[in-house]
Amino acid sequence: MTTFHHPDFTAPLLATAPDARFVPAPADGVLPESFFATTNLPTYVRVGGAWRMPREPRMDSALVLEPDGTLWVREGRRVKRGDLVAVGMAEDGSEGIYVHAAAFFSGDDGEFKFMASEVSREKPIDYALMARLLIEERDRGGYPVWVAGPALVHSRARNDFVWFIQNGFVGAMLAGNAVAVHDIEASIFGTTLGMTGQGEITQSGHGLHMRAINKVRAGGSIAAAVRDGTITDGIMHACVTHDVPFVLTGSIRDDGPLPDVITDALAGQDAMRRHAIKATMAVLIATALHAIATGNMLPAFVTEKDGTLRELTTICVDSLEFVVTKLKDRGTHQAFGVVTNAQDFMHILRLYVERELDQRPAGQLASRATG
Amino acid sequence: MTTFHHPDFTAPLLATAPDARFVPAPADGVLPESFFATTNLPTYVRVGGAWRMPREPRMDSALVLEPDGTLWVREGRRVKRGDLVAVGMAEDGSEGIYVHAAAFFSGDDGEFKFMASEVSREKPIDYALMARLLIEERDRGGYPVWVAGPALVHSRARNDFVWFIQNGFVGAMLAGNAVAVHDIEASIFGTTLGMTGQGEITQSGHGLHMRAINKVRAGGSIAAAVRDGTITDGIMHACVTHDVPFVLTGSIRDDGPLPDVITDALAGQDAMRRHAIKATMAVLIATALHAIATGNMLPAFVTEKDGTLRELTTICVDSLEFVVTKLKDRGTHQAFGVVTNAQDFMHILRLYVERELDQRPAGQLASRATG
Amino acid sequence: MTTFHHPDFTAPLLATAPDARFVPAPADGVLPESFFATTNLPTYVRVGGAWRMPREPRMDSALVLEPDGTLWVREGRRVKRGDLVAVGMAEDGSEGIYVHAAAFFSGDDGEFKFMASEVSREKPIDYALMARLLIEERDRGGYPVWVAGPALVHSRARNDFVWFIQNGFVGAMLAGNAVAVHDIEASIFGTTLGMTGQGEITQSGHGLHMRAINKVRAGGSIAAAVRDGTITDGIMHACVTHDVPFVLTGSIRDDGPLPDVITDALAGQDAMRRHAIKATMAVLIATALHAIATGNMLPAFVTEKDGTLRELTTICVDSLEFVVTKLKDRGTHQAFGVVTNAQDFMHILRLYVERELDQRPAGQLASRATG
Amino acid sequence: MTTFHHPDFTAPLLATAPDARFVPAPADGVLPESFFATTNLPTYVRVGGAWRMPREPRMDSALVLEPDGTLWVREGRRVKRGDLVAVGMAEDGSEGIYVHAAAFFSGDDGEFKFMASEVSREKPIDYALMARLLIEERDRGGYPVWVAGPALVHSRARNDFVWFIQNGFVGAMLAGNAVAVHDIEASIFGTTLGMTGQGEITQSGHGLHMRAINKVRAGGSIAAAVRDGTITDGIMHACVTHDVPFVLTGSIRDDGPLPDVITDALAGQDAMRRHAIKATMAVLIATALHAIATGNMLPAFVTEKDGTLRELTTICVDSLEFVVTKLKDRGTHQAFGVVTNAQDFMHILRLYVERELDQRPAGQLASRATG
Repeated sequence: MTTFHHPDFTAPLLATAPDARFVPAPADGVLPESFFATTNLPTYVRVGGAWRMPREPRMDSALVLEPDGTLWVREGRRVKRGDLVAVGMAEDGSEGIYVHAAAFFSGDDGEFKFMASEVSREKPIDYALMARLLIEERDRGGYPVWVAGPALVHSRARNDFVWFIQNGFVGAMLAGNAVAVHDIEASIFGTTLGMTGQGEITQSGHGLHMRAINKVRAGGSIAAAVRDGTITDGIMHACVTHDVPFVLTGSIRDDGPLPDVITDALAGQDAMRRHAIKATMAVLIATALHAIATGNMLPAFVTEKDGTLRELTTICVDSLEFVVTKLKDRGTHQAFGVVTNAQDFMHILRLYVERELDQRPAGQLASRATG
Repeated sequence: MTTFHHPDFTAPLLATAPDARFVPAPADGVLPESFFATTNLPTYVRVGGAWRMPREPRMDSALVLEPDGTLWVREGRRVKRGDLVAVGMAEDGSEGIYVHAAAFFSGDDGEFKFMASEVSREKPIDYALMARLLIEERDRGGYPVWVAGPALVHSRARNDFVWFIQNGFVGAMLAGNAVAVHDIEASIFGTTLGMTGQGEITQSGHGLHMRAINKVRAGGSIAAAVRDGTITDGIMHACVTHDVPFVLTGSIRDDGPLPDVITDALAGQDAMRRHAIKATMAVLIATALHAIATGNMLPAFVTEKDGTLRELTTICVDSLEFVVTKLKDRGTHQAFGVVTNAQDFMHILRLYVERELDQRPAGQLASRATG
Repeated sequence: MTTFHHPDFTAPLLATAPDARFVPAPADGVLPESFFATTNLPTYVRVGGAWRMPREPRMDSALVLEPDGTLWVREGRRVKRGDLVAVGMAEDGSEGIYVHAAAFFSGDDGEFKFMASEVSREKPIDYALMARLLIEERDRGGYPVWVAGPALVHSRARNDFVWFIQNGFVGAMLAGNAVAVHDIEASIFGTTLGMTGQGEITQSGHGLHMRAINKVRAGGSIAAAVRDGTITDGIMHACVTHDVPFVLTGSIRDDGPLPDVITDALAGQDAMRRHAIKATMAVLIATALHAIATGNMLPAFVTEKDGTLRELTTICVDSLEFVVTKLKDRGTHQAFGVVTNAQDFMHILRLYVERELDQRPAGQLASRATG
Repeated sequence: MTTFHHPDFTAPLLATAPDARFVPAPADGVLPESFFATTNLPTYVRVGGAWRMPREPRMDSALVLEPDGTLWVREGRRVKRGDLVAVGMAEDGSEGIYVHAAAFFSGDDGEFKFMASEVSREKPIDYALMARLLIEERDRGGYPVWVAGPALVHSRARNDFVWFIQNGFVGAMLAGNAVAVHDIEASIFGTTLGMTGQGEITQSGHGLHMRAINKVRAGGSIAAAVRDGTITDGIMHACVTHDVPFVLTGSIRDDGPLPDVITDALAGQDAMRRHAIKATMAVLIATALHAIATGNMLPAFVTEKDGTLRELTTICVDSLEFVVTKLKDRGTHQAFGVVTNAQDFMHILRLYVERELDQRPAGQLASRATG
């Protein structure tokens, strides 16, 4: 059980602090404009030169000085017109109120705050920033590595990923057999695992991914199946036709697998690492397995040509906080978590990239086209 | 422990079935084009007039007849060139292969299939359909009730919700104190719970929502705060300026609360139900509490003016399958689940509605403007 | 948009139905004992020989007949003493009230109900049943295959898993490199990923799993490391000393790997399947990858020696509904989902098995000891 | 984009550091015993008096000095017998290797580590510690406040909660209408929401909770229903018969509600706070709404009678990390998260408390009995 010491009131700042200032509440249930907002931490209020702790502490409330000299923490709605309410914003004692945050938060900046967690679906997703980073990477010839899970292939997101490949935003794609299988089933049969893009299940659909795999195995490789017209669109088609390298690594869950899949895990790691050592950015979407595998082999930094260091921007997208936290707990601390549905992520990210590009002057656009 | 009976092979369809047809595999690890794809269910193959069960059953594999007359289930990759592989798509015995699905799926249509669950983040989100439904509701003067949780207010989604209000897609909004508090804090201070739209935490930010509440309490109501210029934008501003009715119901978690909040739960239910009985559609976003409360008081159907019945379209958006499942488990079985981040949902839904409207002929657009 | 037809009131059951019976409420806000509890489905009440739909339908409420002859759905709390409230339990019209469930639930048994979802953390976990099944499997010489994720190794669950191995409940264990790595790190250093069993992080702990792997690589195999005293306890130790076969399959996420790991995914599948074809029960704990891989190669049924069929009991434990749903959506429909923390699951399951064994007569216990 | 400075190599510790020591690998794929385990942070190795960065940085690997003088980060499995591998554990340069953690982790203790997140299902659950804290609270006459969600009532957990109430571990219980409704339905009908303790759905079960509520409303209060024999067991029965105070606060989701429910949210907050100000410990189980409401009104500390301060032990149990993170993000930073199924939590916690009590000398047990 953790115990605390009271602050040292002989320290200069506290010893010379003024009394707290109290102002009457203007109406029942209404606080003075600059009321002091309480926290749930040990709090000391200077009254008549003495530091006192108010009764019934809680957060989100006001400090009320009763006529009998007692000091209370009270919800704003319970304050009556004329009640004396402490005012001030400072929590360091300089206005007569000291919040003993150091007792709890010795490690960091020592302030009580909300929304301090790193990974939460409640955090805003800064698509504009991510779009800008992606465009900058492309403009300076960076090597963004995209790591994708199968959720990216279902319905809409597939087209959006194709767009990123076609427009030069993907240095390399690392994925598993399933991403390619679903993508190729979608190209050949219009379904993923027998389900249409509207979520309907087709008759005998459970065998369609096996039929898609079999067609590619018969042809010998994904590239061959693109060339002979078996695969006419989609992610793998875009990689092949735009010369974007891809690594498909195998797992025990694989059906087939497709002929391009590296089934030995160590050979697969070596193939992935050849891209990881070149990476200047990483986008990890909807896959714990491949994201953590890639995170394991990525440095947390990029060494620029001039020898300076910068953080390797690492975006991890998943519908659960847990996957991002797990990635960080496995050492990829630099990962920035985006907690959302992978398909919606791709759609909006593309939208923001398109908008950003549209706002650029024509000259810049021209130079990109030749890049 | 559930046991099964073998099928009745004297039944006409099975008694008269042909033998299964076997075709040689064209190459090592490649199956004949129309190979039979196995399931994990009891399977019977007619060979020489007799129904036999293959050895080592599993799904996603082929049926191989060995020269010694034994019958095996084997992964495609293990099949050798020339191996005899069963072909056919039918699972009802009509091509000599019978899958005993009835043993397992007596209740439904009796087919083995993938992706049969109702609620999963893997299901496609049909934004085009939802956009069309919303526009149709508006066009025929429907009363779509929107039920919103605070996640909707953080950063971007707030603007998108305002757009739906301004453009006539919201019949009524049902929410709690927090939605309005965050929205008003965003209007006055540019933060939600002290966090900026970029996710940064501001100095002394933990008190800002209390200061926002206090300002509205001082003015007496949200509408008054809109009129006197305290609140200049956002969801509540849009409701007030566009005469969209809202119900804010209280909970024990509330700070403040705002003066408009109905703090008695039963009075709150009565206020909500006045809108629920008029609802022709329901959109429940990012709130288990308010979604289930509303679901409890919604009929599953709408009675049209001509007396015909239709299902009451009920969309439930949450980042977790669990909330949708829970809503259904509480009786709102008609809910259609959308498993994604609420902010991304709002952004894309608006995009699809805008696209759909843009494609309409000018005359229709004009008529909407007067609606 | 789905529309419905009203029921056929000329059908015999409805044509001959009696009028609904109404009874006065005994007090304000109190309903008669056998009140009819409404659903949110289209409902028809026979009054004076005519079928009528009540106004303001919703679930969890009462049917009230007003003196003016109008019929309302009303919450119990709003009913006044003496109000006429419909009574009866039947929803098929036989007591004058017909709930048109067929309109919505054509596929199944056509009743409105709560808690109908298959996979939810709200479903009870029947540990007693699972304990009984496990003991029965052991008693009749079954072959229960356990598939384990690394969550099983952290702290307490490790000991419980050892207990199941030592006591003959594990036919074979299928897992990945990480399960064995964490387990062996725990045996050698007392940590998993550098974290103690109390959750504390040790100095330089990030390298401990690599040091554990290196020690086993130096010795040549896990069995060798058990024999030479490097590994003195834990899951792998128990497998080796109790001759329980294990298959460790590799993945791109692996550190090391340990020398026993099969790094080729297809060789790994073949090794797993040698156990899958013998399985008479499957327990899949805290691993989507290995659970789905195993599910893919399991039949949904067991063929007994006498030729009869029974369902292959398949228990899938995960802290998220999603993993169970995904397993089912990949075809392992027979899986029974247990939504909880894997460690707590193991602890309680063991407790129930121990209790069940304790209640058996001594003779039975003796026979087990020789088994 | 964050950029970093290289460390200051003129600082005393680095300027006087020795060269790193390299030792030959004993076999292919086996590292020397005390190998240096890499991180993904910028790393500097002193060779020949100069600080150099190795090529191809990644974590979980070794530092290899090639005969040509180049320095590489290499996975252990790729190291060959005789390769020169850096040894040492220190990361501060004192053994010739400096990990530039300060570049990334300025805020905290500046070490690369795994498993550093605060809230994760991967963290061990220290039931022994929690059991000890609960017993200590009881022994010194503390006031542990339990806040419960309805998940606690389904099946087994109900009995365990009753045990804690009966044995003096519950100072007060704060909950909503649903907890009491499910508990009372279980006592009267043996079901919760019409589902049996084995998870089966009963005929007409959807109305049973309404019938349970109606019975209590007819009697006037829960205590009256206990006294007249309507409620014969369960949580509410235990509270009434053991004089444990409870507060049931209302919400818009409530059916009924039960007569004891405080339907006004502000009156409910006031009632809850009367217990919160006395709380010496808080156990928040399976309820975001009530947990955050209670957290809002709890101080983060307890003032002992002698004026010393200690942290107010706050345990938050939920099956999702998100609820715990949200609670912390709302200011209840002192909460300790337990990520598991609430029912399993209760069962195991009780087990540990019973064990701890069993190990105490008889005298202590006697004194408890009179407490």
